[in-house]
Amino acid sequence: MRRIVVLSGGIGGARFLRGLLRAAPEAEVTVIGNTGDDIHLFGLKVCPDLDTVMYTLGGGIHEEQGWGRADESFSVKEELAAYGVGPEWFGLGDRDFATHIVRTQMMGAGYPLSAVTEALCQRWNPGVRLLPMTDDRVETHVLVDDEREGRRAVHFQEYWVRMRAGVPARAVVPVGADQSKPAPGVLEAIAEADVVIFPPSNPVVSVGTILAVPGIREAIADAGVPVVGLSPIVGDAPVRGMADKVLAAVGVEATASAVALHYGSGLLDAWLVDTVDAASVAGVEAAGIRCRAVPLLMKDTEATAEMARAALTIATEVDDV
Amino acid sequence: MRRIVVLSGGIGGARFLRGLLRAAPEAEVTVIGNTGDDIHLFGLKVCPDLDTVMYTLGGGIHEEQGWGRADESFSVKEELAAYGVGPEWFGLGDRDFATHIVRTQMMGAGYPLSAVTEALCQRWNPGVRLLPMTDDRVETHVLVDDEREGRRAVHFQEYWVRMRAGVPARAVVPVGADQSKPAPGVLEAIAEADVVIFPPSNPVVSVGTILAVPGIREAIADAGVPVVGLSPIVGDAPVRGMADKVLAAVGVEATASAVALHYGSGLLDAWLVDTVDAASVAGVEAAGIRCRAVPLLMKDTEATAEMARAALTIATEVDDV
Repeated sequence: MRRIVVLSGGIGGARFLRGLLRAAPEAEVTVIGNTGDDIHLFGLKVCPDLDTVMYTLGGGIHEEQGWGRADESFSVKEELAAYGVGPEWFGLGDRDFATHIVRTQMMGAGYPLSAVTEALCQRWNPGVRLLPMTDDRVETHVLVDDEREGRRAVHFQEYWVRMRAGVPARAVVPVGADQSKPAPGVLEAIAEADVVIFPPSNPVVSVGTILAVPGIREAIADAGVPVVGLSPIVGDAPVRGMADKVLAAVGVEATASAVALHYGSGLLDAWLVDTVDAASVAGVEAAGIRCRAVPLLMKDTEATAEMARAALTIATEVDDV
Repeated sequence: MRRIVVLSGGIGGARFLRGLLRAAPEAEVTVIGNTGDDIHLFGLKVCPDLDTVMYTLGGGIHEEQGWGRADESFSVKEELAAYGVGPEWFGLGDRDFATHIVRTQMMGAGYPLSAVTEALCQRWNPGVRLLPMTDDRVETHVLVDDEREGRRAVHFQEYWVRMRAGVPARAVVPVGADQSKPAPGVLEAIAEADVVIFPPSNPVVSVGTILAVPGIREAIADAGVPVVGLSPIVGDAPVRGMADKVLAAVGVEATASAVALHYGSGLLDAWLVDTVDAASVAGVEAAGIRCRAVPLLMKDTEATAEMARAALTIATEVDDV
């Protein structure tokens, strides 16, 4: 299990990765990061999930918040508001702005997002190879029923951050995904992997969006290596965030077993659920997915490392069959 | 003297304008701002002179420094440096960044600089109509003799801020000026003016650059109204900054009278020198330019208002001839 590929969203994926690096310090970890959450704000290209991984593994994250920079200030944002320039609902701090300024400048000079991400990581040394899922523009839109404005599509960040997922989501659409190509290195990393892990990231708007890039799902299925997932749902509720809201949009119950079946045995070889969901193990196994109940709360790095060890262990078992 | 047009650079012009607004609170003041100092930094469009005028008259200026924002912090710049992204010699603060972000975003959306400047001024209410000299790109380059790198052209900001005018300037070239057009409203404001004032701004890289935009010099000459200047040189040295360095590049002595003769009687009707330069009055008048010695140190707003009153007074005398 030397070469590990992880499909990651933001906070959940990033925290899991920190545990994984402790559990497998010798491994070569490639992270395929979701970019469907990316948004242009103030003329700048913002990549929330890539940055959360980079800041978390690079020691720059705001620990309590889970996203954004530690020791952050908000002068730029306050000034933008004084100019009447919004949106105000997206919390960009001064330190964070610098990342987006560098990224936007490099992209304006013609560098693809993958090259920009590599350049930014030169500073942060995250200890993983961080790749965007694609260099093409993919933007997750959510079809909502808005009381005042009726049914309309909004950017995922508007749904998630501004609306706080407070209105029903009728559909989640990764706009542009069908025309996108995996970023350089993505398919190669999957083909050379010893294991592919779905961390407890959002199965719809994080892992699901990555899988929507044509070629990635097929490459994982064809790699012939264990594919192991960790449930983001514990005791019928998301550990963090509002994954249940977008699961409903795709017709999936917010339970650990329903998410496993959503991925399906054609993709997933093994699945970890929390000990409170031990009763669901049998149902998942009946669907042809090896399953085990272990503690899945990432309360600190050591607890998270233990989750990663459990994922690698069950992967070995799959390999041995 | 109800309608006043002022050709302004940064600090000197901005401080003079504050005095002018006190001296003539009922006047309609149009400021034609130098944009030859503009520079792209970090992918953002920075207009130092326009911003200095806007911040100074709008109450946001760092008073002691004369440029940049009061209560400023530098998180963005520190973070950019941590990414290895420079230049580090240009002092952009967090609050200031917001201005450049808004400007760049608006220009990216297709708005000309004049429209952007008007939008930014909606926040600052500077009490004047602030127009860029042109919406076209003009960039002042300085031909320097660099000990290590030989003769080469550098951006004015590099010469002024990074090199601190520490190497001889052989020429000052407003690149692009010959192809530029006055911004909307500039020629109209001049044509309708009762008086045109050259404040104690740099005669080469501020007022000189504005006059290099085809049509502006001609409009001033054709307006048939008094054109009054205030010397930026007091006692054979610039009051502030390093105007002597760039005067040398155009073969003009750093004296109050030499600057008047540099503008010339074809353009200038009246000229104020400082009382320490009273001996030069006769020489300027011999060249056909009405001249008077008054205190020219802008030590506070009232002293500056007194300078503005003297400028308006001598303009009236010219008008009466």
